[in-house]
Amino acid sequence: MDIESYMQTVGRQARAASRAIARADSNAKDQALRAIAAAIRREAPALLAANREDLAAARAAGLEPAMLDRLTLSEKGIAAMAEGVEQVAALADPVGEISDLKFRPSGIQVGKMRVPLGVIGIIYEARPNVTADAAALCLKSGNAAILRGGSEAIRSNRAIAALVQEGLASAGLPADAVQVIDTTDRAAVGRLITMREYVDVIVPRGGKGLIARLLAESRVPMIQHLDGNCHVYLDDDADAEKALRIVENAKTQRYGTCNTTESLLVARSRAAELLPPVAAMLLAKGVEIRGCAETQALVKEAKAASDEDFRTEFLAPIIAVKVVAGLDEAIAHINDYGSHHTDAIVSENYGATMRFLREVDSASVMINASTRFADGFEYGLGAEIGISTDKIHARGPVGLEGLTSQKWIVLGNGQVRA
Amino acid sequence: MDIESYMQTVGRQARAASRAIARADSNAKDQALRAIAAAIRREAPALLAANREDLAAARAAGLEPAMLDRLTLSEKGIAAMAEGVEQVAALADPVGEISDLKFRPSGIQVGKMRVPLGVIGIIYEARPNVTADAAALCLKSGNAAILRGGSEAIRSNRAIAALVQEGLASAGLPADAVQVIDTTDRAAVGRLITMREYVDVIVPRGGKGLIARLLAESRVPMIQHLDGNCHVYLDDDADAEKALRIVENAKTQRYGTCNTTESLLVARSRAAELLPPVAAMLLAKGVEIRGCAETQALVKEAKAASDEDFRTEFLAPIIAVKVVAGLDEAIAHINDYGSHHTDAIVSENYGATMRFLREVDSASVMINASTRFADGFEYGLGAEIGISTDKIHARGPVGLEGLTSQKWIVLGNGQVRA
Repeated sequence: MDIESYMQTVGRQARAASRAIARADSNAKDQALRAIAAAIRREAPALLAANREDLAAARAAGLEPAMLDRLTLSEKGIAAMAEGVEQVAALADPVGEISDLKFRPSGIQVGKMRVPLGVIGIIYEARPNVTADAAALCLKSGNAAILRGGSEAIRSNRAIAALVQEGLASAGLPADAVQVIDTTDRAAVGRLITMREYVDVIVPRGGKGLIARLLAESRVPMIQHLDGNCHVYLDDDADAEKALRIVENAKTQRYGTCNTTESLLVARSRAAELLPPVAAMLLAKGVEIRGCAETQALVKEAKAASDEDFRTEFLAPIIAVKVVAGLDEAIAHINDYGSHHTDAIVSENYGATMRFLREVDSASVMINASTRFADGFEYGLGAEIGISTDKIHARGPVGLEGLTSQKWIVLGNGQVRA
Repeated sequence: MDIESYMQTVGRQARAASRAIARADSNAKDQALRAIAAAIRREAPALLAANREDLAAARAAGLEPAMLDRLTLSEKGIAAMAEGVEQVAALADPVGEISDLKFRPSGIQVGKMRVPLGVIGIIYEARPNVTADAAALCLKSGNAAILRGGSEAIRSNRAIAALVQEGLASAGLPADAVQVIDTTDRAAVGRLITMREYVDVIVPRGGKGLIARLLAESRVPMIQHLDGNCHVYLDDDADAEKALRIVENAKTQRYGTCNTTESLLVARSRAAELLPPVAAMLLAKGVEIRGCAETQALVKEAKAASDEDFRTEFLAPIIAVKVVAGLDEAIAHINDYGSHHTDAIVSENYGATMRFLREVDSASVMINASTRFADGFEYGLGAEIGISTDKIHARGPVGLEGLTSQKWIVLGNGQVRA
């Protein structure tokens, strides 16, 4: 396959389809989404068969169990995929929303209209359900999508994509609005992330290695997610009961998610009171504690934390703990060592919480709540294409709004500039 | 000078200052801005002297007259610069604004807080007044700025920067919040646009050549401005008087600005009626008309337009004119040939204007108004750091809001995720 000419074709088709999908009315888009969900349900056996072929090939190639697990589609997973697409159909259409329309002294009215970005390139690994999720979000937000899944999932992705295209066609929308790159050649990714004329934004979903590589090579703007080194800070005025409950949930509800807390900071004035019960709870759940010297003095089971531990997203039952002088040191530590993802303060003090809210430079900043809430569904976005750790364009959980932009609109009646 | 270590120092200082400026209260920022304005007025003679040195060196180096003109500071220009800084002081502070705070079923309240981007790198040519403008906008929006002006203006920029830093210090703010790169070595630009750890966004202001080079090499997100190939489309239902007035203003008020109209599209059903008077007006003002065959048949003075003419930002008294079948062809032409900057329809037809508004994929889309209105001041932004032709983050005129981002805030009372 000539990758260059193939990708040119995919890009050109996506650009053309993006115009049709951008002006499609809400009803046609929702009809397509419901048809896609119905097709996924109807073709569950065929999807499972395609997935079994992927799994057999992956096993033969010696893929590790975690990867196989992510690759696996189950009947329940397929039902959830269909339901997810229907949930996106039920969300309000963000496209065409007009806001802030105001008269100016010249007599023109100036406002903003929410519009699709155009063509979204999505690069992901393993999980085939991303194919349906991403297609649904891009379609609802009026964008064309070019999907590039992992080579290990290509049969599953191809089968899902066929159903998506069937659903689009049934609603009179161009099938090219969602294209799956049908080659495992890595050169295709290289082209996708540099085709500025055809691709408006890249959303990578995958491990740190993938993101770092794409970030180094991409010539197209990216909405990306790097580390999730999240913090909980127990302030001088922390409520002890809330502190225990929030640290438990933030650290131990799930160890492998990006909004899981990895570092705990405790105000010196409360360390002797708060740390022992928190540590006992964590130890009882099998969490390894790596602490500063003051932590070790209070918690005998604590190992010594290295500087690197405070920069690490463990994604495991390990927590780094540091006793700090107070709010100033906590904020400085989080801004220096954190990953600007999600950080929380536990405090009943008005001034401290307000300063934390304003000064912590993270995508999500929380008062008296678990970092685990940083999620598109919990925030009311309905669904998310990812969580951005960037500051430009979209920050934190990215839903339909993050897949759109606002253009200026000017309504006049013959006005000219003086 | 060791550029690498110099730029590391500049970057580190900017990052540190960005934290202080981000949490500075509105009063301190406005006090600094007023002090800067006062210092610019007071030191006008010194600024003129520094500028004379730049001009002498530029003349000796054989710079072209247009460049010398942009480089020149006048007493009037200095007064305007001071006034511009005071106008920024008078704008509302965008930082800390909380919006969309809503309770979720879990009991947490989720909303957004507007926050500075961090460190803004601004790369510009010739005009020294950009130093004061950009510094004022970055300061007001709570960002630190690293300014890199053209080597031809370095003495002027250095003198202005000293006054900015004096103003910052007088309000108790870190002088490093605005740094001017004090070397003409081009390697400094190379570092500035790749220091992701220290620079959050690059705003280039300059000619197409500069932007294209930066775009190819930058590893930091950019808010950039490419072409301004703007259109006016005279629809089947155009009001003839408005058509004439708008084309006159859009094309001839100023030839060198990015929001000047470069292409005129006319619906076939009205071409014989509308084109001759519009052409007569343009010709009377010395505008060269390059038209399609139908245009040439109606306007004998029209030269033949090439396909390239319809893609060109003339920045000169030249206009490309095309007769189109109607709305569909007009929208398709604008989306294909335009630069997604600013495009206007002249029409009294509801359906046509609404479709144009929605389907034209440009930063500013106008109904019955001159494209010349696409400007931060006319839109009510007070001032602009530039006009973005990008879709990501900020589109069209970029004011204080475009120099900020929104983080998520979560207000809880001990909630944890179920």
